[in-house]
Amino acid sequence: MSLIVTGTLGIDTIETPQGGAKRVPGGSAAYFAAAGSIQTPVRLVGAVGDDWPVEHRSLLESFQGVDLAGLEQRAGSRTFAWGGKYLDNMNIRETTFTELGVLEEAPPNVPDSFRDSTFVFLANSHPSVQSAFLDQLPERQLTVMDTMDLWINIANEELHALLARIDGVMINDSEAELLTGITNPYSAGEKILDLGPGFVIIKKGEHGAVLVHRDGTAVIPAYPADDAQVVDPTGAGDSFAGGLMAYVARTGSHDFEALHAALAWGTVTASYTLESFGLDGLKGLTESRLMERVELLRAAARIG
Amino acid sequence: MSLIVTGTLGIDTIETPQGGAKRVPGGSAAYFAAAGSIQTPVRLVGAVGDDWPVEHRSLLESFQGVDLAGLEQRAGSRTFAWGGKYLDNMNIRETTFTELGVLEEAPPNVPDSFRDSTFVFLANSHPSVQSAFLDQLPERQLTVMDTMDLWINIANEELHALLARIDGVMINDSEAELLTGITNPYSAGEKILDLGPGFVIIKKGEHGAVLVHRDGTAVIPAYPADDAQVVDPTGAGDSFAGGLMAYVARTGSHDFEALHAALAWGTVTASYTLESFGLDGLKGLTESRLMERVELLRAAARIG
Repeated sequence: MSLIVTGTLGIDTIETPQGGAKRVPGGSAAYFAAAGSIQTPVRLVGAVGDDWPVEHRSLLESFQGVDLAGLEQRAGSRTFAWGGKYLDNMNIRETTFTELGVLEEAPPNVPDSFRDSTFVFLANSHPSVQSAFLDQLPERQLTVMDTMDLWINIANEELHALLARIDGVMINDSEAELLTGITNPYSAGEKILDLGPGFVIIKKGEHGAVLVHRDGTAVIPAYPADDAQVVDPTGAGDSFAGGLMAYVARTGSHDFEALHAALAWGTVTASYTLESFGLDGLKGLTESRLMERVELLRAAARIG
Repeated sequence: MSLIVTGTLGIDTIETPQGGAKRVPGGSAAYFAAAGSIQTPVRLVGAVGDDWPVEHRSLLESFQGVDLAGLEQRAGSRTFAWGGKYLDNMNIRETTFTELGVLEEAPPNVPDSFRDSTFVFLANSHPSVQSAFLDQLPERQLTVMDTMDLWINIANEELHALLARIDGVMINDSEAELLTGITNPYSAGEKILDLGPGFVIIKKGEHGAVLVHRDGTAVIPAYPADDAQVVDPTGAGDSFAGGLMAYVARTGSHDFEALHAALAWGTVTASYTLESFGLDGLKGLTESRLMERVELLRAAARIG
């Protein structure tokens, strides 16, 4: 079973109430791949410019499971750069700047060595780009997509065409509400199933996540974390997706029971990302350290 | 083990996006007692006026575990009446009117037959009234209190004096934030422990609840409910408290493990209250029907 992701690699500049970080590695594909690689190899497809810091490459390479054969570094192009500022309770995020760079160019191709990938995660991107990526993966068994408010608003038709092609959607609660007009995540999830996918995972940040699947419903709280353990929420959602998809790819099953079990692996993976800026919280992690937190979460969230 | 509650009995008028109900039975003590009585007898101490509808008494009497020996019906007084309106996502509630009535008079006394009560729940009230109630219960083994923003703002000193006397606090997330200045429920809970209580339960509505105890931490999601199952959130928090305290009183233990287990009983009890206006959702419930939902929640919220 081989897991592939396409999405952004970015240079992030972040401010939080507690501090900040300048020009650290970020982007959805970087977080997903680093997070997922703790459990299983992850193939990364993305593009950067010639300004991409060599330390960023070194850091990504230090995650030994990340396969960078699909990383295109383009001469004369600029890397995607993003600035974000978190307010008070870390739930409000303002974008301070966005430099699209390579994201305005043609999307990267899937290298031949990746074409037999079976588990596919489409991080947030234009739905037409996501759809074209799928066309290059004839052996896919499970495709899960993310999206964002921008595409719901300006590419709604392409988004609906893509929803009819994929197996699962992983979005946050505000995106689910925008897509369906429904606040309640269980009801919003049911409405999204009507659009084609077999399951929807709605991420609620500090409140956990909900899985609405044709075969059942599941819910998980976030990993208990106090103020001292929440340094930077950037990339937590992509890390959740990486940990979850890696569990599914590692175990090889993707039915309701497997996806339910995978929620915990996504949750604990994200809990490490929160603890530092950039990818630092994921550095040096092992599957057994993820398992430790799965056990702690199991104890704290035991029912009855 | 005997469970006692003091709080309001009210006449509620409620509007929601889906409908409304006029002059239905409400009030914190009514919800708590009806909800708790499904598992164990509950002694109710409260006051109403001579305008209290006879159907409200009949309905409360239909909950056979509710002991109304501490209910004072006062000639010439008016029953507490409250109007509330829920907006869009049911998370925003506006108070449309409040008629305090008997709440402006002397609080009701504990009848002699209730003085040996061991498990005590102080529903929201002025902290001096809550404190005076405690003085009448010399055999109390576990005291848990609720409060609200009003008392945090205007009776902060009395509230802190009470916090030093009680075992546990059960409040919602916005109240915990107002009391501590901290948004994160785990950190807010720790700060409240410094004020005296041995544990804090922070209710997050549709996002579940968190238990912060000197001996550990626990978290529970809300019972999965779609739009069709959420008719009226009024009284859900008091029903959660009633179900939780009834479980503790029924089993007789109130250590961390017992309180952790009790979270599920509070959660499923509240899930029934949400499904109808007033006390209707609790009517005819049995312990085995609560247990059914505990099992369903255990399946949906299983970790890993």
